[in-house]
Amino acid sequence: KNRGRLLISCPDRPGIVAAVSKFLFQFGANILESNQYSTNPQGGTFFIRLEFECPDLAAKEAILKKRFEEVAKSFSMDWQMTAVQNVKRTAIFVSKELHCLRELLWEWQTGDLMTDIVMVVSNHEEARETVESFHIPFHYIPANREIREEAEAKQKQLLKEYDVDLIVLARYMQILTPSFVEAYERKIINIHHSFLPAFVGAKPYERAFQRGVKLIGATSHYVTNDLDEGPIIEQDTMRVDHKDQVQDLKKIGAKIERSVLTRAVKWHLADRIIVHENKTIIF
Amino acid sequence: KNRGRLLISCPDRPGIVAAVSKFLFQFGANILESNQYSTNPQGGTFFIRLEFECPDLAAKEAILKKRFEEVAKSFSMDWQMTAVQNVKRTAIFVSKELHCLRELLWEWQTGDLMTDIVMVVSNHEEARETVESFHIPFHYIPANREIREEAEAKQKQLLKEYDVDLIVLARYMQILTPSFVEAYERKIINIHHSFLPAFVGAKPYERAFQRGVKLIGATSHYVTNDLDEGPIIEQDTMRVDHKDQVQDLKKIGAKIERSVLTRAVKWHLADRIIVHENKTIIF
Amino acid sequence: KNRGRLLISCPDRPGIVAAVSKFLFQFGANILESNQYSTNPQGGTFFIRLEFECPDLAAKEAILKKRFEEVAKSFSMDWQMTAVQNVKRTAIFVSKELHCLRELLWEWQTGDLMTDIVMVVSNHEEARETVESFHIPFHYIPANREIREEAEAKQKQLLKEYDVDLIVLARYMQILTPSFVEAYERKIINIHHSFLPAFVGAKPYERAFQRGVKLIGATSHYVTNDLDEGPIIEQDTMRVDHKDQVQDLKKIGAKIERSVLTRAVKWHLADRIIVHENKTIIF
Amino acid sequence: KNRGRLLISCPDRPGIVAAVSKFLFQFGANILESNQYSTNPQGGTFFIRLEFECPDLAAKEAILKKRFEEVAKSFSMDWQMTAVQNVKRTAIFVSKELHCLRELLWEWQTGDLMTDIVMVVSNHEEARETVESFHIPFHYIPANREIREEAEAKQKQLLKEYDVDLIVLARYMQILTPSFVEAYERKIINIHHSFLPAFVGAKPYERAFQRGVKLIGATSHYVTNDLDEGPIIEQDTMRVDHKDQVQDLKKIGAKIERSVLTRAVKWHLADRIIVHENKTIIF
Repeated sequence: KNRGRLLISCPDRPGIVAAVSKFLFQFGANILESNQYSTNPQGGTFFIRLEFECPDLAAKEAILKKRFEEVAKSFSMDWQMTAVQNVKRTAIFVSKELHCLRELLWEWQTGDLMTDIVMVVSNHEEARETVESFHIPFHYIPANREIREEAEAKQKQLLKEYDVDLIVLARYMQILTPSFVEAYERKIINIHHSFLPAFVGAKPYERAFQRGVKLIGATSHYVTNDLDEGPIIEQDTMRVDHKDQVQDLKKIGAKIERSVLTRAVKWHLADRIIVHENKTIIF
Repeated sequence: KNRGRLLISCPDRPGIVAAVSKFLFQFGANILESNQYSTNPQGGTFFIRLEFECPDLAAKEAILKKRFEEVAKSFSMDWQMTAVQNVKRTAIFVSKELHCLRELLWEWQTGDLMTDIVMVVSNHEEARETVESFHIPFHYIPANREIREEAEAKQKQLLKEYDVDLIVLARYMQILTPSFVEAYERKIINIHHSFLPAFVGAKPYERAFQRGVKLIGATSHYVTNDLDEGPIIEQDTMRVDHKDQVQDLKKIGAKIERSVLTRAVKWHLADRIIVHENKTIIF
Repeated sequence: KNRGRLLISCPDRPGIVAAVSKFLFQFGANILESNQYSTNPQGGTFFIRLEFECPDLAAKEAILKKRFEEVAKSFSMDWQMTAVQNVKRTAIFVSKELHCLRELLWEWQTGDLMTDIVMVVSNHEEARETVESFHIPFHYIPANREIREEAEAKQKQLLKEYDVDLIVLARYMQILTPSFVEAYERKIINIHHSFLPAFVGAKPYERAFQRGVKLIGATSHYVTNDLDEGPIIEQDTMRVDHKDQVQDLKKIGAKIERSVLTRAVKWHLADRIIVHENKTIIF
Repeated sequence: KNRGRLLISCPDRPGIVAAVSKFLFQFGANILESNQYSTNPQGGTFFIRLEFECPDLAAKEAILKKRFEEVAKSFSMDWQMTAVQNVKRTAIFVSKELHCLRELLWEWQTGDLMTDIVMVVSNHEEARETVESFHIPFHYIPANREIREEAEAKQKQLLKEYDVDLIVLARYMQILTPSFVEAYERKIINIHHSFLPAFVGAKPYERAFQRGVKLIGATSHYVTNDLDEGPIIEQDTMRVDHKDQVQDLKKIGAKIERSVLTRAVKWHLADRIIVHENKTIIF
């Protein structure tokens, strides 16, 4: 297709929309969707996402990007332009719990997850059969606290080979090293099984049970080096009651996790997320 | 303030956003919010809502509107420009059930309903004390099937006197005549106590109980001359179960009604609603 | 296990709980869960569901049932006693849309659907690969308006062979004949893709789009010979907006359908549903 | 009326329901509602709530309680029997934010809060007009960290005078002393403006904004001497997004707070809550 997307952050002032829309119009592009937000119209930061249709986009893409440099410069913009047909390449990391993985594979199979899932990596063998039935390469790489560096070296090697744009931690229960996280800044999406910031860290369902909460939740966020403190992309909650034991919380929670993670991944793939000061703007 | 809003509908084609944003920029306006939608980028209808801040808007308003005529003409636009400080004038019609009225009065009292509530009209006396405690004029106008014309004549008289922009039917249980509805096209918002199109017409809670539904709902819509068939603005539902009798459904439903109606009225007051072919676009 | 369940309906009067709990205690049973409801304590109908643990239930089951006859008689009870370990046998009917089928298979695979899925029947071949990968027999039986009787004859034959207790219509887009429905009264669960009674019949998503609703839903119900008029078991809704086209409604709706149908099937399997005058009591 | 309620906790074993239901039947009582829960059928704690209708309950209440002592003893029960017509007496404590207070007063006025609201206490004058318009005594008692003891002395005096059974902290922004809390153990219900355990303590909306959560919530709980750590009665959440500033979160949160607190208070008044090890069982 001829669809493109433009994401921009810059200091807010009059004339930004006029300049950008004029630029796109000069190339014959029709703006299909436009979303904007400003932290403060007086001196704040302005964000905009434009989705447009431009005849012969593939041919024009390079020149569009080059020319846009001038507009960007005059408004001190951070920006990113993507052609929708350049599909992002995704790797999924998983451990033993497969519900999030399966939801992603299904959505991908029905054409609702616009990405190439190029491989699945796991420190266990549980997922192999499912993954291979979708004709996706499965890589078993043992990982635990002791052999973290070694495991990550192998993972990085694969990520390069497969030219991966996005890593989805679909209940991958290992902590990543700072160097790994930095190498894929804002390119790693995790699902945490609590409504953060409640129950940061291990065993959130057990702690939710202990505390007697009446809602449990899940949170999808970009991974940073502060555990479970990265920018939140999406959250949701469901009701539980006194009859629900830890095992029930896990089952109910699994439903939240899979829908929350899937939404977050879809928004990332559609270039709908801008990260600003550890918070996300979702367009 | 210097805030303005621009609502536009026109045939979709490239260049609309560029033209409008350039126009606003020429007057020094900063676009604060922008939402758009197209039924079809190839030959469909395009809709956009812009909220902007323009220095000295009050002084410039007339000239802005006049000059915008040219832009509008070249794109065959239906459009409407409003200055936020010209607050809309609202009349509330109510019968005996006061929960929706009270919610609106509260929101208005706390400054969350940006309108002047200029009067409340009722065919019963139940609401008088509540309304007058807010220092709002209350008009008792008897109304029923037999004296409909007569009642509406009095209502119209008052609506003119008070220069009313919006009529909210906050559980006003009378049907309006076609001539009344036409006189206030897309300016009458009703709350119907079911999730339309289920249970059109009378006694929806009784019928919901009879049918054994597991959810009840409420729907806010613009009034047209097809009963409960006008463009839907907002809906919501809540769970009920076999233990809930008709009386319980009414209590639960009252909570839905008041929140759904209030959201619909707020969106209307903020010029966020465009009606297109019996459907609403909510920006 | 030694778990049993007792479902009772009878005219309400004092002493029912005392009689039933005394009966169970005489057999050394411990009541684990008890839910009751009365349409009216004065002269209405009383319903109760008891889940109990009884040592050596398998050995005692026959005698329990025999002896309970006396209690039942003195209170004019309709009743049903089941041993949890006698797992119900389920057949799933499906056409081309597989999301509901897949959800049921997953839940079954993870041990959360306490039933034997003994076969899947379809009038299309789309589901075969999925079904057979779960090692469940798949039967392709062509069906449409013209060959309905013929198709049902084959289906009935299979239902007998497999000794089926429950038929789940997981988006099986064929209407069943009255004789088929009567043969499996209250044993056929359907998922309808709208929040009934809105959009009874064909193409509910198309009609929801046309009407401009702000919520779409799904409804699971027992099949009767009045199309989409059977006792409602479960319903749910999700938000949509003006941007959502029919295709989007179908995707969002698919998520509702699969969770609503799964909940309904689980409740049926756990003997939690009593049907009373075209309504369900869910314990 | 002749309605009574019985709440029981005791070690789980067979025969409890039989003994209790037989006891009630001997007095001619009809069981209208029955809910039970066991932490573990083998050696856990069993909880049951029964609502019953007993002819001439007022006359028989003393004898029922006396006779039930024997049953209770043989099963080592903690128990409580209440006659519904002995309405509980409630005091509301409030500071400057009135939304929770107003919701409670409305529900009370429409007959949906089955209690006598005997007084409202505040450390500010904001609520006076509202409260007195409902013909309820309003007591202004200045309170802050410095004069806590002095303020509580006055409050305790009033609580005794008015013979108060339940204290509702409807956004009363003062911390209570341990001696005050102990004097009203499990009789003080607070609303905290976050989904606990997230954002314990001060300024939860500001911190929610800072963290960039996509849901905000509210929690109603019994007050203990661990700040915001008491048994949770009810919680709920609503969606927010990047556009919502702290002020918006407060407005959205106010809607959650008022519904969550009202539900919690209603359940307490209906004797539906049992506290067990810092968790609540809600029947």
